[in-house]
Amino acid sequence: MSDLRIISVSLGSRSYDIEVGAENLEHIGSFLATFQPISTTVILTDENVLQQGYTHRVAESIAETGIDVHLLSVVAGEQSKAVETAATLWETLLETGIDRKSVLISVGGGVIGDLGGFVAATYARGIRFFQVPTTLLAQVDSSVGGKVGIDLPKAKNMVGAFLQPLGVLIDTKTLQTLPDDQYRSGLGEVVKYGVSLDAELFQLLETNIEKINLRDKTILKQIVADCCRIKAKIVAEDEFETTGQRVLLNYGHTFAHAFEIQSHFSLLHGLAVSIGSICAARLAVRMGFVDEIFLKRQISFHQALGLPTEIPNGIDWKQTIELMRHDKKSEFGKLRFVLPTGIGNCRLADDVDARLLEYGL
Amino acid sequence: MSDLRIISVSLGSRSYDIEVGAENLEHIGSFLATFQPISTTVILTDENVLQQGYTHRVAESIAETGIDVHLLSVVAGEQSKAVETAATLWETLLETGIDRKSVLISVGGGVIGDLGGFVAATYARGIRFFQVPTTLLAQVDSSVGGKVGIDLPKAKNMVGAFLQPLGVLIDTKTLQTLPDDQYRSGLGEVVKYGVSLDAELFQLLETNIEKINLRDKTILKQIVADCCRIKAKIVAEDEFETTGQRVLLNYGHTFAHAFEIQSHFSLLHGLAVSIGSICAARLAVRMGFVDEIFLKRQISFHQALGLPTEIPNGIDWKQTIELMRHDKKSEFGKLRFVLPTGIGNCRLADDVDARLLEYGL
Repeated sequence: MSDLRIISVSLGSRSYDIEVGAENLEHIGSFLATFQPISTTVILTDENVLQQGYTHRVAESIAETGIDVHLLSVVAGEQSKAVETAATLWETLLETGIDRKSVLISVGGGVIGDLGGFVAATYARGIRFFQVPTTLLAQVDSSVGGKVGIDLPKAKNMVGAFLQPLGVLIDTKTLQTLPDDQYRSGLGEVVKYGVSLDAELFQLLETNIEKINLRDKTILKQIVADCCRIKAKIVAEDEFETTGQRVLLNYGHTFAHAFEIQSHFSLLHGLAVSIGSICAARLAVRMGFVDEIFLKRQISFHQALGLPTEIPNGIDWKQTIELMRHDKKSEFGKLRFVLPTGIGNCRLADDVDARLLEYGL
Repeated sequence: MSDLRIISVSLGSRSYDIEVGAENLEHIGSFLATFQPISTTVILTDENVLQQGYTHRVAESIAETGIDVHLLSVVAGEQSKAVETAATLWETLLETGIDRKSVLISVGGGVIGDLGGFVAATYARGIRFFQVPTTLLAQVDSSVGGKVGIDLPKAKNMVGAFLQPLGVLIDTKTLQTLPDDQYRSGLGEVVKYGVSLDAELFQLLETNIEKINLRDKTILKQIVADCCRIKAKIVAEDEFETTGQRVLLNYGHTFAHAFEIQSHFSLLHGLAVSIGSICAARLAVRMGFVDEIFLKRQISFHQALGLPTEIPNGIDWKQTIELMRHDKKSEFGKLRFVLPTGIGNCRLADDVDARLLEYGL
């Protein structure tokens, strides 16, 4: 087994570890065994992940330690993050005899992590939860921070809870089978960390463009571990999104949400974040936070990683502004953005004059 | 306004007050106003409580303080504690514009409290929650302790969360309109507190039988406040049901659950607890924990309050034992009871020999 990197997430209530490796999926059994007594485990996954064989490798590793394993699979895609799926899973857990000494393990992308976490948070008023994220987006973002939930027909992530997992196991080798657009979507969040929060990560990314594009699993291990470390630090300061620290994770996100809604979510989240980050950088230039050189450097960087930088066709600018005024994180219709102030630094601008945006960016 | 009794519930995470009065429903507005800023309130209630006028009095009191009020009503009865109702409520909250600065207020019995609490715990990953219990059972039991949830078709309270409210307001005058069987059901839990946990409360109850039967609102105020104080103290020691303290609230409950299931829940919970408590006392005599005098005194006491003491027709003894072995609080099929050791005292007997029960009690 290759070297592992362990990120410790320290929260007010408790702490847990994120283990990042480049070929460590089979380590799940011994990782879980440290949390005995466990009456039984139940793995939640989707059809795609199942087909790639990752789920079975996780299941076998657990079974080898002598712990019971049950396997539940749902349809791949956002449509599974729904009340109906949660209801079916709750009833299945009951029939399977899952109790408070059981552990639910999500093996898959963000949908599986969010759905599994919500079901674990609410079944029997909460059972233990473990994450094995297999997409880049889930590895660097959704599996860290404890946000779990499902969608309502008219609003994403509208029903949920905060549930910190027992632990997270990340094997960057799973990224080899990821479709290109999903890999780029994950990179959209990766570059966000570098540009807005961590100059060292930016440096690492900028000097390893080729390896990243070739999905070199060793550089990916380092990058994923860095992203987890950056996010874990911010989450530790603001576990329940009450102190305002977590908002700094949202560089590019105010624009991104407006683009995603207008595309009816056909634009992948991380790609929307990539475009949104460039918009935010342009706005930051206009407000004098950064100069044109910063903007050009960021655009070249995104382009080198195959990330989109231009607003796609079909996006209406007036509607974009209207949607941003009513983003669930905005208050009283104010325009609120996380803007860069230099490489690895950003700040919240929470009442931006709409006239700055009126004629586009 | 009559004198109020305030019980402070001190938890690891935070504390809140239970205000108990004999005619204080109109105090809700000023109670809530201490939690400003509140963007809007949404009251959850049922048709029966609405008809009795309590909901409107609560709504008017809040509106008088200048806070927005929305009103949502569901069908009265256990069938509303379901996934489908929760889903409808989540969508309605979204359409109503309820946000993280809103407060959800449950006005009604245990079903409304449990359902409203679950919806509040999960909508937008948690909004603030306030309880106005209007049945005796909800006032002395379900509104205290933070357990909220819904039923699955095959198991009650199987999906839920722990959510401590901002506060609880109890007006014992609302008990005047309670149907007799529901009033007696609440008394079943009241006597449980006296017999198994608090000799002083037992004394108070035994010397005020007539007033209790006449629903004297002043004695009820005192009794309800005492029950809340007793439960709050135990909950403070075991908020998440992990240390084992909370199990002591379950005198009579192992038997009661088995009776309720066999009656298909036509036997009211508190009445089942009353019968179950007498069964537990009989078992305690058999095990030498208490003597026959204790048992006879308890039976007379229950009878004087119009509470059932005999196992009703249609209950099969063998099935009762089988159900008790698989109660969700039992482990590995062991028979587990809270048994009295004297007035106001009890202990957990967690592996009772089945032969003691084989031929009935």
